Amino acid sequence: MTLEERLKTLEKRVRQLEDRAEILQLMATYGPAVDSRNGDIVAELWTEDGHYRTDGLDFAGREELAALVELPGHRQYVDAGSAHVLSLPHLVIEDDRAVATGYSRVYVVQGDGHRVARTSANRWELVRTAGGWRVQSRINRRLTGAEEARQLLHGGVAGGDDPAVDSSPP
Amino acid sequence: MTLEERLKTLEKRVRQLEDRAEILQLMATYGPAVDSRNGDIVAELWTEDGHYRTDGLDFAGREELAALVELPGHRQYVDAGSAHVLSLPHLVIEDDRAVATGYSRVYVVQGDGHRVARTSANRWELVRTAGGWRVQSRINRRLTGAEEARQLLHGGVAGGDDPAVDSSPP
Amino acid sequence: MTLEERLKTLEKRVRQLEDRAEILQLMATYGPAVDSRNGDIVAELWTEDGHYRTDGLDFAGREELAALVELPGHRQYVDAGSAHVLSLPHLVIEDDRAVATGYSRVYVVQGDGHRVARTSANRWELVRTAGGWRVQSRINRRLTGAEEARQLLHGGVAGGDDPAVDSSPP
Repeated sequence: MTLEERLKTLEKRVRQLEDRAEILQLMATYGPAVDSRNGDIVAELWTEDGHYRTDGLDFAGREELAALVELPGHRQYVDAGSAHVLSLPHLVIEDDRAVATGYSRVYVVQGDGHRVARTSANRWELVRTAGGWRVQSRINRRLTGAEEARQLLHGGVAGGDDPAVDSSPP
Repeated sequence: MTLEERLKTLEKRVRQLEDRAEILQLMATYGPAVDSRNGDIVAELWTEDGHYRTDGLDFAGREELAALVELPGHRQYVDAGSAHVLSLPHLVIEDDRAVATGYSRVYVVQGDGHRVARTSANRWELVRTAGGWRVQSRINRRLTGAEEARQLLHGGVAGGDDPAVDSSPP
Repeated sequence: MTLEERLKTLEKRVRQLEDRAEILQLMATYGPAVDSRNGDIVAELWTEDGHYRTDGLDFAGREELAALVELPGHRQYVDAGSAHVLSLPHLVIEDDRAVATGYSRVYVVQGDGHRVARTSANRWELVRTAGGWRVQSRINRRLTGAEEARQLLHGGVAGGDDPAVDSSPP
């Protein structure tokens, strides 16, 4: 390869590593934002028309996403002392789309310790925008043994994964 | 340095960053694979002759590793709703070998919340193969105050760490 | 851009990715070090004059940081079987300073499972030294609904974050 070709290859590889780092940074913003009830920071992690579907709830667009932190259930968690923690995700990035698959847990104060109020499977579909990576769709399903949560995990790591896949719920 | 030398140095540094990302990706595949009971995906994370030693159990080779998800205890966990979550590991990479040291936790549904069924120390020994990084050996010890689990953690971060070290159990 | 300029840009971008990896590695060392009671490894994560403030305790300088693992409460945790686990942090790096914001949890054996003894918000302020990245200050506040813990999380992700900010406690 010529110097020019090697440089071009390197630039592409570094861009891929940066994509990975940017997506992890975006995901690491979510917990601190919801646990300090900063709806605007939460909303800006998503695209304008992004959505977040969790068991029984469906937040569509930034206004609804920002309002998530005002829900009575969420306020109760935060007032008691909550931590929304994400695991290191499995990450498939293809050009301007990405899928992150992993776990989330919500810890809430209980007595002199903390209980695990929720453990869920998550599928994040992300897109590259002019302003950087944003969440197009997040689906969260509590791990109760239900098939749908397991499918979410399986779909992310099963290899035939296509970030462009339609994620509309059944 | 000449342009050629700088390019060569950069290529090496980028390769190291990619190694790190690939190993983290491999580790992030484990949980979703076992929690959706995909034995083949689990098995392919290991080398052909890889092994996984956990308290009282020893899985050797891909056939045994794939069958791990069929164990009655594992099925019970998954049916109830389980999450096998790994922490961000301490990672030492030297050429074609690597050691990752960190924690794993298993969360299982209990009532309207989840209990922490298991918290363990883990040492993963990895090798670079033609098909990418694979696990040669994983040792998992529940953190019950026993010396062996502490030694696993100490060995990983104590600096004199040599990825080529013999990991055969005592 | 000339080849020289492109190379220079790449070198800077790779350095930033390496900074990120080095800081994550440093943070991934903390848990295994405290859970195997290796005070020297803990102390060396900090600068000579670094400090660690946690609710009711203030460790200043490496001698006090190394002695942290000898505290009766800490020994009790480790003897029972403890895991100090950090979440993937939100990370802002600017030149030779960085701020990492995230969660820590302490799991301790209870019966045949583990309880979550502590879940906290953390702000790590790091500096680049001749020997690599070191912690200048870590502040840890248990998430009990108290305003200070929420502020720690908010301050890290609110965007106007300046790694050079004074972190002296009120």
